[in-house]
Amino acid sequence: MNPQRVNDLIEVYRTGLLNDTIPFWTRHAPDREFGGFLTFLDADGTVVSTDKPMWVAGRITWLFARLYNVVEPKPQWLELARHGIDFLRKHGFDDDGRMFYSVTRDGRPLRKRRYLFTETFAAIGLAEYAKAAKDEQARNESCDLFKLIMRYHTTPGMLEPKGIPGTRALKSHAMPMILLATSQVLRQVDDDPIYDQVIDASLHEVLNHFVNTDYEVLLENVGPDGEFLDEPEGREVNPGHAIETSWFIMEEARHRGNDPELIRRACQILDWSLKFGWDTRHGGLLYFKDCKGYPNPKYEHDMKLWWPHNEAIYATLLAHHLTGDGKYADWHTKLHDWAYRHFPDPEHGEWFGYLHRDGSVSSTLKGNMWKGPFHLPRMQLNCWKLLEEMRTGH
Amino acid sequence: MNPQRVNDLIEVYRTGLLNDTIPFWTRHAPDREFGGFLTFLDADGTVVSTDKPMWVAGRITWLFARLYNVVEPKPQWLELARHGIDFLRKHGFDDDGRMFYSVTRDGRPLRKRRYLFTETFAAIGLAEYAKAAKDEQARNESCDLFKLIMRYHTTPGMLEPKGIPGTRALKSHAMPMILLATSQVLRQVDDDPIYDQVIDASLHEVLNHFVNTDYEVLLENVGPDGEFLDEPEGREVNPGHAIETSWFIMEEARHRGNDPELIRRACQILDWSLKFGWDTRHGGLLYFKDCKGYPNPKYEHDMKLWWPHNEAIYATLLAHHLTGDGKYADWHTKLHDWAYRHFPDPEHGEWFGYLHRDGSVSSTLKGNMWKGPFHLPRMQLNCWKLLEEMRTGH
Repeated sequence: MNPQRVNDLIEVYRTGLLNDTIPFWTRHAPDREFGGFLTFLDADGTVVSTDKPMWVAGRITWLFARLYNVVEPKPQWLELARHGIDFLRKHGFDDDGRMFYSVTRDGRPLRKRRYLFTETFAAIGLAEYAKAAKDEQARNESCDLFKLIMRYHTTPGMLEPKGIPGTRALKSHAMPMILLATSQVLRQVDDDPIYDQVIDASLHEVLNHFVNTDYEVLLENVGPDGEFLDEPEGREVNPGHAIETSWFIMEEARHRGNDPELIRRACQILDWSLKFGWDTRHGGLLYFKDCKGYPNPKYEHDMKLWWPHNEAIYATLLAHHLTGDGKYADWHTKLHDWAYRHFPDPEHGEWFGYLHRDGSVSSTLKGNMWKGPFHLPRMQLNCWKLLEEMRTGH
Repeated sequence: MNPQRVNDLIEVYRTGLLNDTIPFWTRHAPDREFGGFLTFLDADGTVVSTDKPMWVAGRITWLFARLYNVVEPKPQWLELARHGIDFLRKHGFDDDGRMFYSVTRDGRPLRKRRYLFTETFAAIGLAEYAKAAKDEQARNESCDLFKLIMRYHTTPGMLEPKGIPGTRALKSHAMPMILLATSQVLRQVDDDPIYDQVIDASLHEVLNHFVNTDYEVLLENVGPDGEFLDEPEGREVNPGHAIETSWFIMEEARHRGNDPELIRRACQILDWSLKFGWDTRHGGLLYFKDCKGYPNPKYEHDMKLWWPHNEAIYATLLAHHLTGDGKYADWHTKLHDWAYRHFPDPEHGEWFGYLHRDGSVSSTLKGNMWKGPFHLPRMQLNCWKLLEEMRTGH
């Protein structure tokens, strides 16, 4: 990648982050009346729902703390992170220490789900805030939450099963991948060896159970020991999810002094997923595919969602940086160009999240139960900082 | 509607049912090895999943018994209905009398859900079969299942709540609408006054709680006494679902000697839902809309699904028959033409179920957890029989 291209891209990601993405959310999201954030927004920031999705609550908190830690110690960002922490502490937790999936505007619990994702996103929010504010209490809360997650995850029977026990045991790729990413954040503030242990175990699980060499994919659901299930859920591939995992693994390789074997395995997942997920008809990444070529039954299977494109833009840039292979620079350009042609909202800023297969906008929502300021600003931040590293050579 | 048009349409629906829809399923669905039906099929009948969705199991059983009762007493249809009953009896029920949502090919339970829809579809399958086979045991099972449904539905706390109790009570239009339709089937085989009572209560609930005169829609979710909730789920409208309910109400009006007030109320729902649901850009009925015009957050909100079109084709024909109003004949033609231009699979027969907003095919699946032979053949059968009634004048 030539220096001019590097500089141009830094400008795109940096100004996109600081002058577009972040201002959209700082302008519309803080709820100064009831605390926390209103993130369920239409294109222009209109509040579509005052309910507060707690995945988003943890992630937006993480984001502001992360900006403070990585970009510059702006008091506004620290205050917003603190604003998020306050709401999480006050309204996020059930009596058993687990968290709610959604609450009303004033913090009354609406739903609690069997999955542990609200907890993982709150854990990274608390950890990143602890680092920013040097807040020992937040650090301890984050570590305790991580231990609770592991207790629920590893103790048979603690999480209510989704299916009838005994008939079909399946595990989901989402869990080791999120434990990997969560541990990577938490070990910044805690030197407990548990994080490296969980990372090792997660890598083992992803690389040996979910990676399927027969079909050259990373599967979303497998049996307890990686058994292939020849049913729609067992054949399901989410290329964007696999690509996100690939760069979590690359980051781990970087953390280990550019571990070549980890880079190789991560790039293999990336290569497969790009090849399998790219839509040769309309461009962009398809959301779900079946590894044997059957139709995936989810309504959204052939939609183009913003976040797989965010993950793929960063993953290809990082792969290019780590391997020097020009094919990743080409993929990065291809993904970047398709995404920037289709997702940004030219009128109100930020990105649309949900496009039809042909790239036309399906939903004008900027936020909902899952979308908020996370994948897009994280990509912009990570790409910007990586490109600076590439520019300066360290 | 002129006699030639009536004759032409009879031919379309009758031959569609008998020479296309039914042969697709009789050819591909019966599982002679493990019993029941394999209904999770791709366009050409390829089995995509051997798991057995129990909504579909009850509905396909109902269909074959219904054909036997209404079209002609073909031994093949009775045998297939019996084949379905055998599987439901053997593998459909949990120890508590409730039913499973899905089972493996050989009948081991996979999932049980909090909703009572599997039970309602099995109840109509059992009732229609009881009528066809004059099977007293099936009749009793059907009646008992209905009582169990009512016990779970009306006893607070018997069904596990979806949300955190106390914060937000919501009820769903699906429940009174399905109780209305289920009761209409069961009272054919049982003279217990409970069915008419449940129908009265369901009509009251739909017409007074779910019908919203401010927005001129039938809402999917309201508070316990019909309170409007100004959140995405409270503003949600499923025009096809509302239209289906409108013809259930019209059928009730017919049952009561063409009750003019019921016809008026049903047609009001139909009018509103057609106006609100019709996609003026691409034609066809949108799947979900927000009554205040915000984006509905479901991925599939702007897709075109087969079943709302099936329901609307029959509802408009029936409304035309009951009112003589030419606007319903026009709507019927518009809906019929759009649907027949976009949904049928010209190569392998039957209909695709899932189109993008622009009418292009999103999924080639002929069956999945919800789609099977139900809405399409029921529409073809109902339209055919109604047109014959219109032709002969009784």
